[in-house]
Amino acid sequence: MKIGIVGGTGDIGEGIALRLSPLYDIIVGSRDKEKAENVCKCTLDVCEQRGKNACTLVGASNQDAVTCADVVILAIPFKHLVSTIESLDCFEDKIVISPVNPMEKRNFFEFVPPAEGSAALLVQKMLPKSTRVCSAFNTIAANKWRALDEELAYSVPVCGDDADAKREVMGIVNNISKLQAFDAGPLAVSCMVESLTPLLLNIARYNKMRDVGIQFH
Amino acid sequence: MKIGIVGGTGDIGEGIALRLSPLYDIIVGSRDKEKAENVCKCTLDVCEQRGKNACTLVGASNQDAVTCADVVILAIPFKHLVSTIESLDCFEDKIVISPVNPMEKRNFFEFVPPAEGSAALLVQKMLPKSTRVCSAFNTIAANKWRALDEELAYSVPVCGDDADAKREVMGIVNNISKLQAFDAGPLAVSCMVESLTPLLLNIARYNKMRDVGIQFH
Repeated sequence: MKIGIVGGTGDIGEGIALRLSPLYDIIVGSRDKEKAENVCKCTLDVCEQRGKNACTLVGASNQDAVTCADVVILAIPFKHLVSTIESLDCFEDKIVISPVNPMEKRNFFEFVPPAEGSAALLVQKMLPKSTRVCSAFNTIAANKWRALDEELAYSVPVCGDDADAKREVMGIVNNISKLQAFDAGPLAVSCMVESLTPLLLNIARYNKMRDVGIQFH
Repeated sequence: MKIGIVGGTGDIGEGIALRLSPLYDIIVGSRDKEKAENVCKCTLDVCEQRGKNACTLVGASNQDAVTCADVVILAIPFKHLVSTIESLDCFEDKIVISPVNPMEKRNFFEFVPPAEGSAALLVQKMLPKSTRVCSAFNTIAANKWRALDEELAYSVPVCGDDADAKREVMGIVNNISKLQAFDAGPLAVSCMVESLTPLLLNIARYNKMRDVGIQFH
């Protein structure tokens, strides 16, 4: 399976590439292809030092990360979501994972969803009907993705309307460290998943913690 | 400290009374005072069988549960929240805990907040300015409250605008079983706490689980 990461050189994207590259063929996308190639070189070095086999890991433009992939992860901040999607095509028949959380930092972190109700619903609206959008990975902090010596012992709620796509995405989640995927329902309730992240950021702030995660049990 | 439970004979209220009665003086409120007295008798029997000291545990009207208490817990469903608060007074200077979650069950559970943004903000708006409202206990299922042989190993996010009141409420939370209180910020972000419950109900439903709870770490 080929996984393309749009925004693969950003905070979250780079960590996702690190964690996924021993498991899948990864296409690290960036607006700047050269930057993506450098990130891939560093990631391959890290994998080699750790004695882990990296699958194919290639730097590419964001467009190539979409075009060449079966599954696309949108590792971009909410504020760049619309302009990034508008600049790309070839999403037909692909699975798209949105870990995007629409939020703003004022005195505290607030959930500020778009008119569609959530970032994932906005993504589904902008993409072709044949694209199967799931929300996942919303609450995993960038630092945690990158800290390869730490197990990711977190729960990951996954929303989506297509049962096969959701099963594929939950499979990817369950392959990473100790992440555990939970079916959280259709995309219509992805707002409840996306609002977890500002909640966790507030909890980190007010309780002097770092990179707070979540477990369901 | 005297804790009054409005709706103390309901699903959640009865379980809260069971867990709190060995720790605090509890006034179990109900629209039907006789029903409240019967629930208290049963609760005292349970405590005695388990060899636990019950503090004063008295059945009362909902109004007396407010009037005689320092801290009032609104253990009522969202659909009865407005009418119940409108029927009561004497909230001045008290701490009020809202575990209320505005949600609806359609094909799945949805978070349906009032115009104020959350049940807790609606409660604060309806009550006198001197009343200090906190949201807490939103995600603890009724079955879990009642299952006295099970530890409640969950995280409890607490929102509120008054620092002293929040500290008191977090103290109550931390006194119960293995519950752990987390400051989740001001009442303005209580919507993010209240939306956890429909999320957990969906996760329970779609993953064939029961009474799913949450932990932050």
